[in-house]
Amino acid sequence: MLLPELREQVWRANMDLQVHNLVTFTWGNVSGIDRETGLVAIKPSGVVYEDLSPENMVLVDLDGNIVQGDLKPSSDTATHLALYRAFKDMGGIVHTHSSYATSWAQAGAAIPAFGTTHADYFYGNIPCARALTEQEIKHDYELNTGKVIIETIGETDPMAIPGILVREHAPFTWGKDPNNAVHNAVVVEEVAKMAYRTITINPSTLPIPQTLLDKHYLRKHGKDAYYGQK
Amino acid sequence: MLLPELREQVWRANMDLQVHNLVTFTWGNVSGIDRETGLVAIKPSGVVYEDLSPENMVLVDLDGNIVQGDLKPSSDTATHLALYRAFKDMGGIVHTHSSYATSWAQAGAAIPAFGTTHADYFYGNIPCARALTEQEIKHDYELNTGKVIIETIGETDPMAIPGILVREHAPFTWGKDPNNAVHNAVVVEEVAKMAYRTITINPSTLPIPQTLLDKHYLRKHGKDAYYGQK
Amino acid sequence: MLLPELREQVWRANMDLQVHNLVTFTWGNVSGIDRETGLVAIKPSGVVYEDLSPENMVLVDLDGNIVQGDLKPSSDTATHLALYRAFKDMGGIVHTHSSYATSWAQAGAAIPAFGTTHADYFYGNIPCARALTEQEIKHDYELNTGKVIIETIGETDPMAIPGILVREHAPFTWGKDPNNAVHNAVVVEEVAKMAYRTITINPSTLPIPQTLLDKHYLRKHGKDAYYGQK
Amino acid sequence: MLLPELREQVWRANMDLQVHNLVTFTWGNVSGIDRETGLVAIKPSGVVYEDLSPENMVLVDLDGNIVQGDLKPSSDTATHLALYRAFKDMGGIVHTHSSYATSWAQAGAAIPAFGTTHADYFYGNIPCARALTEQEIKHDYELNTGKVIIETIGETDPMAIPGILVREHAPFTWGKDPNNAVHNAVVVEEVAKMAYRTITINPSTLPIPQTLLDKHYLRKHGKDAYYGQK
Repeated sequence: MLLPELREQVWRANMDLQVHNLVTFTWGNVSGIDRETGLVAIKPSGVVYEDLSPENMVLVDLDGNIVQGDLKPSSDTATHLALYRAFKDMGGIVHTHSSYATSWAQAGAAIPAFGTTHADYFYGNIPCARALTEQEIKHDYELNTGKVIIETIGETDPMAIPGILVREHAPFTWGKDPNNAVHNAVVVEEVAKMAYRTITINPSTLPIPQTLLDKHYLRKHGKDAYYGQK
Repeated sequence: MLLPELREQVWRANMDLQVHNLVTFTWGNVSGIDRETGLVAIKPSGVVYEDLSPENMVLVDLDGNIVQGDLKPSSDTATHLALYRAFKDMGGIVHTHSSYATSWAQAGAAIPAFGTTHADYFYGNIPCARALTEQEIKHDYELNTGKVIIETIGETDPMAIPGILVREHAPFTWGKDPNNAVHNAVVVEEVAKMAYRTITINPSTLPIPQTLLDKHYLRKHGKDAYYGQK
Repeated sequence: MLLPELREQVWRANMDLQVHNLVTFTWGNVSGIDRETGLVAIKPSGVVYEDLSPENMVLVDLDGNIVQGDLKPSSDTATHLALYRAFKDMGGIVHTHSSYATSWAQAGAAIPAFGTTHADYFYGNIPCARALTEQEIKHDYELNTGKVIIETIGETDPMAIPGILVREHAPFTWGKDPNNAVHNAVVVEEVAKMAYRTITINPSTLPIPQTLLDKHYLRKHGKDAYYGQK
Repeated sequence: MLLPELREQVWRANMDLQVHNLVTFTWGNVSGIDRETGLVAIKPSGVVYEDLSPENMVLVDLDGNIVQGDLKPSSDTATHLALYRAFKDMGGIVHTHSSYATSWAQAGAAIPAFGTTHADYFYGNIPCARALTEQEIKHDYELNTGKVIIETIGETDPMAIPGILVREHAPFTWGKDPNNAVHNAVVVEEVAKMAYRTITINPSTLPIPQTLLDKHYLRKHGKDAYYGQK
């Protein structure tokens, strides 16, 4: 079996979606990439979590050809691959329909950076992509979903805001590896929940000032970080 | 004992209502039909879930006569039977008072198709039936509940929108078998929850366009489906 | 030990408050009465649930004298006793600070009968008592809490609407025995939750018509009841 | 090892944050002080809860010097120390990002004393501190967080309102020891949840009158308290 370690990581990350209450039934998938070989391990499509194993993760190349695996890969594979091709720092990608984040995506609204919980992980609002056009939906839908995500990210550093809302759909998050991408999926759901409650209490709440965003993001990330043990 | 397999399916489906947190006390029931004999297995009325077994599921014919069983069938039996008589594709029916879906039913509002989570299972809004008239409530209430559901479904395919809200009451869902009907009951509750949050964030959110509804519904259903392993 | 059976019932009912997620810390208490002797068993004050046992339930008479027990009875004992003295059908009483019901009490609003879930147990809105006056708070506060509940019930049958919201405080429920009173405490919390969501979806929702209230309440209660196995 | 008992208390209090569902990942910390030696035990920074032990709690003096410990103390240590220096009655301090309380902090609003649940623990509204200035954020951020809390408390008794919301951030609570501070963190989250729902039901709800606040606070605190067994 190729890439046993990556398979193990991707399998465990998929199982963790359940541990963190991010999925109902099979509504979520995680992938991970081995940059050396350019191979991606991803959850098979529509398989229940209890039946997953490191062995039945599907290996595909960056063009979507199945390299190893008897099952069909996730129906969202083309979205994952588009992101891996565009952004070299992404090591893992997660897609869920977690409840609060999906509600923001359905409402077509970015999640504002309302507090330090958000700023500890996301260096700005979590954007909501534009709706796909009729043509983008009809042909190569999953690929176009990836393209719209890439268009929304634009020139910003995707690793500084490691998640996005796909409008009328649900969130995608990413990270340096599959585990880190799941971590960010949990954070998106938690800040989506807090932001929801914040605007209910005070609909005119403004995002936090740049100085506070800098302070919290940079105490956890970059060369001057001082949070944690490193 | 007649129909041991159907009894087992219906019993398990009733137990699954608890597993999926869809019921408080005895506020829910599942039935299943064997189309060959025309017999329906249904939960006995008011019995706590721990005391249920495949053996104490009640067997009734499509006219409501008890064919096998010592207990009284669910008080909602007449509603289930009306639906089985009207729609030949229904193999299982579920009634719950799951919290978010019931709240939409109480508010008298259909659940709009706000996103792809909804579109993956329901090919359009989940309708809310009209209120029953005074006469419909006073005489043959449970039968009339079934009739109002049938009236609301009208000419649409009930299997394409496998659930409905009974106004001032709660949801009913159905499927090709009891297990599938429970699956749809879970989905109704999840999309009811997301839709609730969506309109709180943005009260003027519109349902998704037909193209996206087609895309998601048809990638999971029908001859061109490509989700899952078949 | 006097009344071992009542002690057991009251102890178990207190423990069930935790099972049903109705209490945080020690924020709830259950009592039960033996009408023959006129003795009431009640939770001791401020004792954590893990330390409760049938033996340390406190026995008091209807005037509040401790008949058996080394611990002080619940600080709300005077409220319970006032209700037992006023209404001969009450066999058990529950007080909790369950989250949704308490929120309605804090908002000073009755819980409207918005659907059949409510009508199955409560034959009309769950009322919210008036605020206590300054004098009623300063002297004999717990007794006056009972008096204001009695005043609110007025001429209606307390067993047909077995619960109330004490304004700025929290719910009390009752039943034919301690277990039934806990059952009603669960229902109050569930309908409080559904009603909260109902008015969020549609702030102008009206209570259900009397005919539907009659139908659902009377199919579960009274001589023509046909729900359940009796 | 110095202060084994304090280490044990602080470790257990940190673990209890998980038991009470107050933390996601490592988003919370508890400290405790030994007033005799002036030493503070606090959670190490960014360490997951499963890896905590009484032994790896970090001991610091009131100036922030590490007295015993191989790990870096919580990044919020300077906030804790500022509070211990200012208020001699504080024996334990808790910081969490618990969801409802954080939402109030993000909305920049104090939690009003809407009911007796609140009054049983907090003798008035739970205040929300002013936002830090740009200078206060840029230099000695954690120390300034402590100073703004102290400024907000002003001349009131911090033990009568044992918690505060740091604006755009999250709650801090305290108590006579670490366990009591965690207890107050649970209460802040519960009353934040109830207050959220209260204003949704009735946006013009007013705080309870002083007489009721006195009654409930003083039946649990001070020389005339009569709640509980002492």
